[in-house]
Amino acid sequence: MFYFTIDILGTVAFAISGVMVAMDKRLDIFGVFIIAFVTSVGGGSLRDVLIGNTPVFWLQEMVYPTTILGAVVFSVVFRDKLKYVRKSLFLFDTIGVGLYTMVGVQKGLAIGLSPVMCVGLGTITASFGGVIRDILCNEIPVIFRKEVYATACILGGIGYFLLEKLPVNEAYPYVGGICIVIGIRLLAVRFKIALPNIYKAI
Amino acid sequence: MFYFTIDILGTVAFAISGVMVAMDKRLDIFGVFIIAFVTSVGGGSLRDVLIGNTPVFWLQEMVYPTTILGAVVFSVVFRDKLKYVRKSLFLFDTIGVGLYTMVGVQKGLAIGLSPVMCVGLGTITASFGGVIRDILCNEIPVIFRKEVYATACILGGIGYFLLEKLPVNEAYPYVGGICIVIGIRLLAVRFKIALPNIYKAI
Amino acid sequence: MFYFTIDILGTVAFAISGVMVAMDKRLDIFGVFIIAFVTSVGGGSLRDVLIGNTPVFWLQEMVYPTTILGAVVFSVVFRDKLKYVRKSLFLFDTIGVGLYTMVGVQKGLAIGLSPVMCVGLGTITASFGGVIRDILCNEIPVIFRKEVYATACILGGIGYFLLEKLPVNEAYPYVGGICIVIGIRLLAVRFKIALPNIYKAI
Repeated sequence: MFYFTIDILGTVAFAISGVMVAMDKRLDIFGVFIIAFVTSVGGGSLRDVLIGNTPVFWLQEMVYPTTILGAVVFSVVFRDKLKYVRKSLFLFDTIGVGLYTMVGVQKGLAIGLSPVMCVGLGTITASFGGVIRDILCNEIPVIFRKEVYATACILGGIGYFLLEKLPVNEAYPYVGGICIVIGIRLLAVRFKIALPNIYKAI
Repeated sequence: MFYFTIDILGTVAFAISGVMVAMDKRLDIFGVFIIAFVTSVGGGSLRDVLIGNTPVFWLQEMVYPTTILGAVVFSVVFRDKLKYVRKSLFLFDTIGVGLYTMVGVQKGLAIGLSPVMCVGLGTITASFGGVIRDILCNEIPVIFRKEVYATACILGGIGYFLLEKLPVNEAYPYVGGICIVIGIRLLAVRFKIALPNIYKAI
Repeated sequence: MFYFTIDILGTVAFAISGVMVAMDKRLDIFGVFIIAFVTSVGGGSLRDVLIGNTPVFWLQEMVYPTTILGAVVFSVVFRDKLKYVRKSLFLFDTIGVGLYTMVGVQKGLAIGLSPVMCVGLGTITASFGGVIRDILCNEIPVIFRKEVYATACILGGIGYFLLEKLPVNEAYPYVGGICIVIGIRLLAVRFKIALPNIYKAI
């Protein structure tokens, strides 16, 4: 129930980020819905396709299209008010990123992949929805240019495998990994920490 | 035989739409062929990958590459004459959209998906070939910006499930769904009906 | 061991080509790594997904992420010196293209596809990493616009099936196919041979 709530909050936050990018591009209502949908479920879909876990997860879960449709209607109607909830949205988004990273890690473990690949799958799950969103909107993906986003996923995934070596209940590494992702992302935004600039010398 | 003829006409119409977009971008002959191919089979491929129906359908059907190659050669050679058959092409394209929607719906039913997901798969089958075409040509997909195209697919899919509840032969809902897609798209173009504009207030 | 060496050289060359495109776009270090990774393994991943050969090949091979990470670090650090090894990189890249074409052909044969489809799979394996790289960097894929690249793959694949009809050891057609791809690409670059221009008359 706890995970389900996070999942829905994350889905809503991702969908709204899709709506905002799509409306910037002045897409029609169908386009806005598709971009919202892809932003929410695109990362998990790519993960499922790469590991052969098909049909992909959302095809059997009515909760995703329903939630996303609700989020789209809400954010199209109240688009002028979205700025007042921007902080909540950022928080939901960050919590969603944390959860999705761990979901991806678990899916990798379930088919016996190595920790490095599990961390990769977690990062794909959490970040490639946004990549596909940006590609469909004809932009270079924002996570390739700025934002300590994927880095938080990678460190959270590594944290999971370190915590998992400790003699603790199996829920701790999972929740710990989520907290690491959230913590790093909040700190990075708060203190404007970015990846090292590799273009300085040029 | 009847369905096979529609399928081929649709494949040809989709391929020619790919050729036209690719030639606008001045791609070379290989690029033109790939764009034509992807426009024709991309939607069905994405559907097959999402439901795990692999190898994807065209890998075992020589008729698709052969037909598409023929359509590419024809439309490159006669490109100055294509405008004279524009109406026929639009008709073939529309018929293809109707058929592909129903093929997608059937594939969803075959693996036990719910009606909503079947309609989604039908829409993906009919419209994502064009989405991938536009992405490869570095354009925002045209169906996200205008055209009552995906809407026709969705309504046709819903029509199928309504007709299917009636005590009629099983071929009727299938053909009925195709006719609804065709009818809505023709009416929308004839009377210039578009989706409601969500940007008016801005 | 021989094939493994070629594979690694090809992976390195593909990764470096990804780094160069990504740095042109001024992506951050994470984006550079992802583009390098996708350029190297994207073609093979698309092939595996289309034929249902999942989990895709690199998820169980640590050698790919390790090699690509090494290539990225090397080429970011020595980016000003890369021009001195440009010829070696072109050669590695060309050898990689040859090998990947044959790997794709073999994967198609293994699931009983027809020769035409096997050649298609080989071409996808060798060339779609670059297509995905260009899409993620918001460019029209370079192989759709110039370069006798895919043509070399196609002819190499056809060469394999012709050689395979001869009464020779089974390694010959394989190596012969690789040599045809390499030979055609080198000749095309040396003599500036391009595909026939289909826009002359316009």
